[in-house]
Amino acid sequence: MSDASPGEFDLIQRFFKARFAEFAANSNSVDLGIGDDCAVLNLPTDHQLVTSVDSLNESVHFPVNAHPAKLARRALATAISDLAAMGASPLGFTLCLSAPQLSESWLQDFSEGLFSAAEAFSIPLIGGDTTRGQQLSLSFQVLGSVAAGQALRRVGAKPGDKIYVSGSLGDARAALDYLQENTADNHFLERYWSPIPRLSLGKSLLGIASSAIDISDGLLADLGHILAASGVGAKLDLAALPMSSALLETYSRGDAERYALTGGDDYELCFTVAPQKEIQLQQSAQQSGVTVTCIGEIDVELGLHGLDKQQLELLESAGYEHF
Amino acid sequence: MSDASPGEFDLIQRFFKARFAEFAANSNSVDLGIGDDCAVLNLPTDHQLVTSVDSLNESVHFPVNAHPAKLARRALATAISDLAAMGASPLGFTLCLSAPQLSESWLQDFSEGLFSAAEAFSIPLIGGDTTRGQQLSLSFQVLGSVAAGQALRRVGAKPGDKIYVSGSLGDARAALDYLQENTADNHFLERYWSPIPRLSLGKSLLGIASSAIDISDGLLADLGHILAASGVGAKLDLAALPMSSALLETYSRGDAERYALTGGDDYELCFTVAPQKEIQLQQSAQQSGVTVTCIGEIDVELGLHGLDKQQLELLESAGYEHF
Repeated sequence: MSDASPGEFDLIQRFFKARFAEFAANSNSVDLGIGDDCAVLNLPTDHQLVTSVDSLNESVHFPVNAHPAKLARRALATAISDLAAMGASPLGFTLCLSAPQLSESWLQDFSEGLFSAAEAFSIPLIGGDTTRGQQLSLSFQVLGSVAAGQALRRVGAKPGDKIYVSGSLGDARAALDYLQENTADNHFLERYWSPIPRLSLGKSLLGIASSAIDISDGLLADLGHILAASGVGAKLDLAALPMSSALLETYSRGDAERYALTGGDDYELCFTVAPQKEIQLQQSAQQSGVTVTCIGEIDVELGLHGLDKQQLELLESAGYEHF
Repeated sequence: MSDASPGEFDLIQRFFKARFAEFAANSNSVDLGIGDDCAVLNLPTDHQLVTSVDSLNESVHFPVNAHPAKLARRALATAISDLAAMGASPLGFTLCLSAPQLSESWLQDFSEGLFSAAEAFSIPLIGGDTTRGQQLSLSFQVLGSVAAGQALRRVGAKPGDKIYVSGSLGDARAALDYLQENTADNHFLERYWSPIPRLSLGKSLLGIASSAIDISDGLLADLGHILAASGVGAKLDLAALPMSSALLETYSRGDAERYALTGGDDYELCFTVAPQKEIQLQQSAQQSGVTVTCIGEIDVELGLHGLDKQQLELLESAGYEHF
């Protein structure tokens, strides 16, 4: 890590390198961690490397003065969610951290949140870069492994496949209604700040799901990526949309559905399964401890079907582009 | 890639995805490139993954209004230099690009420079993230592979080992004297904007060098990392420092030596070799087409020796901290 003043260098050493060195040393995947020109990782035999990067800038992707521990936890979780969507197992991550200045208390809180999230998701920090910049900015690179040829992709959904989502949708969108207020943490804010990357579920879908994606931009947008990549359409069953009781108690049915369909940031998985694999799916999902709900079916006819006229008008007024 | 306006999204599609998709498709290492939740890479059997990240911010790491093609070329080359320092072969890279706005002409020039550099160094773009931010900022993640257990590290230098550097030193530091002026490109500026990552040399050092690093912060600083990691000292032979005729003709011997010792950005390799492997080294270096020069020897006594008093005073007045 570079570009920090001598004092900051000591802090980074204290809050990142020292703490993570032990964690990485205990990982089978890390042969060489922080402190050389590169990190060196071991992949299990007959596995492929899976990697993704995500950038988050203050005031664009998270509020100014976001709590550093929450920010770190959420940013790492959302980056790892991309590994979950591929059915991959975490190997390690790197962090590029850019800021006008870094105070000791901020670094302490941030590294605390980062470390506890990294432990929770069993992913060691293996390198990074700390630089001076005009705004607080984070780039996370996550690395994982998957058995060769098994990775879940967006392409692969076939007509007749059932469409599933994990958990419940719309809570993180509801959190945006509370984010700017000085509200005490509620269910929605908890869902927004502490998304759970569906790593176990993702792995359990290998050989079962025909396609998968994580829901970061909203169900319609992300399912749309599966449909576009696979060259198919979908018929949705709105009545089946899994929504939390908190969402249904706080909002009208129409607003709750709209949040569930278009709200991003839930980081649940959306995936498709051939009908003959549905029993296998239920067993796998149960083992991974995550509820999965069938919300529709893949269709030969392109586009999205099953949304009623009123719902479509609401979505369009909210900026959703029908396709 | 996300967060761009619809028009920018088309430009990114045009300048990055479309162009690099074909390149990645022709690469044996890329099983899945840009366009899914993650990229999927193949590693050769019995190889390890090698990875590094570098962030560059406008006005901190490169001048405001830097030429986009030069900027892209230099940034990618310096990131790849870390792979060279490990003796690794490139597999692919990702780019996080953040900017207040992106014009078509800037994107065209930038992608042109990026693509030509990627082709020159045989490293496909496999993913990235484009975001809105207050300043132009680039983060490059490079991925490579190395035969298991063979990666060159900073630790490993032993007393009696010879210290070598590739190419010549100090030119990139000299370029800083011309960077702010509106000078036509000269030898120094060429060295600054177009460093050549020593990939072939790095690979040829596997099994030969006992330690290695790339010179990004200056010879003394980077050799210092080898000495610290290896728990040894060094005796330098200043008369042997390889310097370009341009440097020696433009500057006094003292200034040229100071630039060669403390100037960063040359991205040559510094490495150590046991005396019994020096003949093997000369053959390998010749095959990779890069001059290597012995500039000293590893010593049991900690610290750096061989700098005369006058040179030390010059270095200290230039901010160099003796250790």
